[in-house]
Amino acid sequence: MIYLWKGNFVEEQDVHINPQDRAYMFGDGIYEVIHVYNGKLFGLKEHLDRLFRSAELIELNLNKPYEYFVEISRELVSQNNIENGYIYLQVSRGDSVLRNHGFADYNEQHSVLYGFAVSSVVNTKQQIEGTKSILYPDLRSLLCNVKSLNLLPNCLAKHAAQKAHISKVIMIRDGIVTEEKSGNVFIVKNHEVYTHPDGCKILPGITKIYIRKVLADLSIPLHEVEFTQDQLLHADEVWVTDTNSEIVPIIEVAGYQIGQGKPGEVYKETLKKYHEYINQECFE
Amino acid sequence: MIYLWKGNFVEEQDVHINPQDRAYMFGDGIYEVIHVYNGKLFGLKEHLDRLFRSAELIELNLNKPYEYFVEISRELVSQNNIENGYIYLQVSRGDSVLRNHGFADYNEQHSVLYGFAVSSVVNTKQQIEGTKSILYPDLRSLLCNVKSLNLLPNCLAKHAAQKAHISKVIMIRDGIVTEEKSGNVFIVKNHEVYTHPDGCKILPGITKIYIRKVLADLSIPLHEVEFTQDQLLHADEVWVTDTNSEIVPIIEVAGYQIGQGKPGEVYKETLKKYHEYINQECFE
Repeated sequence: MIYLWKGNFVEEQDVHINPQDRAYMFGDGIYEVIHVYNGKLFGLKEHLDRLFRSAELIELNLNKPYEYFVEISRELVSQNNIENGYIYLQVSRGDSVLRNHGFADYNEQHSVLYGFAVSSVVNTKQQIEGTKSILYPDLRSLLCNVKSLNLLPNCLAKHAAQKAHISKVIMIRDGIVTEEKSGNVFIVKNHEVYTHPDGCKILPGITKIYIRKVLADLSIPLHEVEFTQDQLLHADEVWVTDTNSEIVPIIEVAGYQIGQGKPGEVYKETLKKYHEYINQECFE
Repeated sequence: MIYLWKGNFVEEQDVHINPQDRAYMFGDGIYEVIHVYNGKLFGLKEHLDRLFRSAELIELNLNKPYEYFVEISRELVSQNNIENGYIYLQVSRGDSVLRNHGFADYNEQHSVLYGFAVSSVVNTKQQIEGTKSILYPDLRSLLCNVKSLNLLPNCLAKHAAQKAHISKVIMIRDGIVTEEKSGNVFIVKNHEVYTHPDGCKILPGITKIYIRKVLADLSIPLHEVEFTQDQLLHADEVWVTDTNSEIVPIIEVAGYQIGQGKPGEVYKETLKKYHEYINQECFE
């Protein structure tokens, strides 16, 4: 694999992470994962917009203009000959000062840019058959709108699911459904769709941006409002969305069958239209 | 500086952090900072006990017995000729698998041990004169009892204080005083002491373990109960405690004078007795 390291494209042995890197001791950095279809980055603009928003929220200086990130993202794809898969981009706040919670003012920051790329395919079996989810307490910080490197609660949630031999984890905070451990959650009730509103309790998903468009195209109402664990379990359909898995139907949550126990009709229409957006951006 | 790296003592250029290290992308690891006085580690047992508890709470396999950590901690001090200062110990969950939130089962984990040591002196001026604190929302995860590498909220809190040219930050969650950004908070009212109870909202401080003993010695009641921002501002005394600063009196919070605006009598007695514990462990 060819890594992106401080602006250069290098082999793994040439990635020299400084032991005082703030990402290593504080998770003081941000990242993006961007899906590659047909050698092209899907939603590149939306992902980079979010990277810049994350940076702004934590006063992290990216040190480079937007157009630079467009270029190195594309270069990361081509350097690794990715036809289908994803790129990972990470920016740490810096690596030149002895460990100290405090950090330099914005104009004095020297961030560390890091990335890699992986070939992979979408799990279409999961999209056709649906999958199961456990429930897990949402232990995350109130900085979920920042796509930061503070991911221990997400890792623990995923591990709990693994132990149950289940792939997804829907998280609950104070009785409210917030997110899947690495994606947004949608429910369908009476042909209308619901998802948690943006804010500090969830990540503003890129797939959600497209789903907003898709549902508008299909004239299906989308309500960005809080809903409870009980509403989740009694929904007609449940979906979870993330960059790599796209949109995945959940047919069982914590042992409770959702709806008919199979992918729903609203899901199928939505996924089909979502694929049209992918086709437009990456295959035409 | 001599680093501890995967069990060896090496120069900085020989610390080869793998770019897939889970500490680097998830903050999936734990740490301890241990104070060195007179070349000896103060509270070593208490710190290592906490390291083992943190590991247990997140199912992280330290891969080595307790006695091993005692040895390498002492070796880190001597390798760096630390007379007064601190050591930093960190354990990441592993670095050998491509980025994935999920992690291997306990018995299959290969953790990465890392550390360094720094000479420093206690800020005695701050202890004599007292210092100021700002208030800041506690945005941290509900895994505060784990001394983990997910420290972005703490870094942001410290930065807010820096911008105000103030050294301490007392954090508030839902109107309740939880912690200083890297230490516990105590208040004194009518010659009785109060601090937030242990649990997922605060780190169980090592200095607090000693303060429990000190206050028992002095026959001063200690109540480990929640208290509000209002109780904080109207306290007779406020202290914050951490391994490096020991116990620090706060004479002003968010512009409000605390008590008489100078270090209180209970504080002075407590610090004196705390120093006796340090003397017993490190100077006799």
